[in-house]
Amino acid sequence: MVSEFPARLPSTPYYAVIFSSLRTGMEPAEYAQTADRMLELASQSPGFLGVESVRDADGCGITVSYWATPESIEAWRLHVEHLQAQASGRNRWYERFALRVAEVFRASSLPVS
Amino acid sequence: MVSEFPARLPSTPYYAVIFSSLRTGMEPAEYAQTADRMLELASQSPGFLGVESVRDADGCGITVSYWATPESIEAWRLHVEHLQAQASGRNRWYERFALRVAEVFRASSLPVS
Repeated sequence: MVSEFPARLPSTPYYAVIFSSLRTGMEPAEYAQTADRMLELASQSPGFLGVESVRDADGCGITVSYWATPESIEAWRLHVEHLQAQASGRNRWYERFALRVAEVFRASSLPVS
Repeated sequence: MVSEFPARLPSTPYYAVIFSSLRTGMEPAEYAQTADRMLELASQSPGFLGVESVRDADGCGITVSYWATPESIEAWRLHVEHLQAQASGRNRWYERFALRVAEVFRASSLPVS
């Protein structure tokens, strides 16, 4: 489902949600299943543009999702199944996280697109 | 040098540079040394607020650096040693990358800060 890395996106401006997290290590199978399901659901949500997600062997992960508007981010935040996953994340799956919402105003790439 | 994950940052607004890259696998030692040096130099650059960097076993990496102003990002972009590293990155170290510059306007965390 993460078909391209880096994600191929339209021209700026667009919006980014930067989610940096450290896993507890609890419930690895349930976590992985939910993470896959959230990527699937997010990608079907209106305004979704793309996602990039990396986690290293130490449990440090960064997921950046890209969106057309702030409203599309808010709608995804309030999706009922996503709200349930957020609660599990806070309660059991993440030791720490930071979530940052940003407006992307400049972009470049290799190869040049 | 990346002392905290996620990075501890001041209140919004601030700026983020999201660098998503796929390594070629060439020159792993030279690459690692240069990556460390760039983190050291960036952290001494005016306006630097923090950095988060993760790379997985497949060579996919996301580094997000945080800055006080767009001008501080531009100054770091033009640092002479950084320009040399950028050239090596384009020519030998990265198969693909995307670089996105964004203004962060909302943030939250666990634990709540």
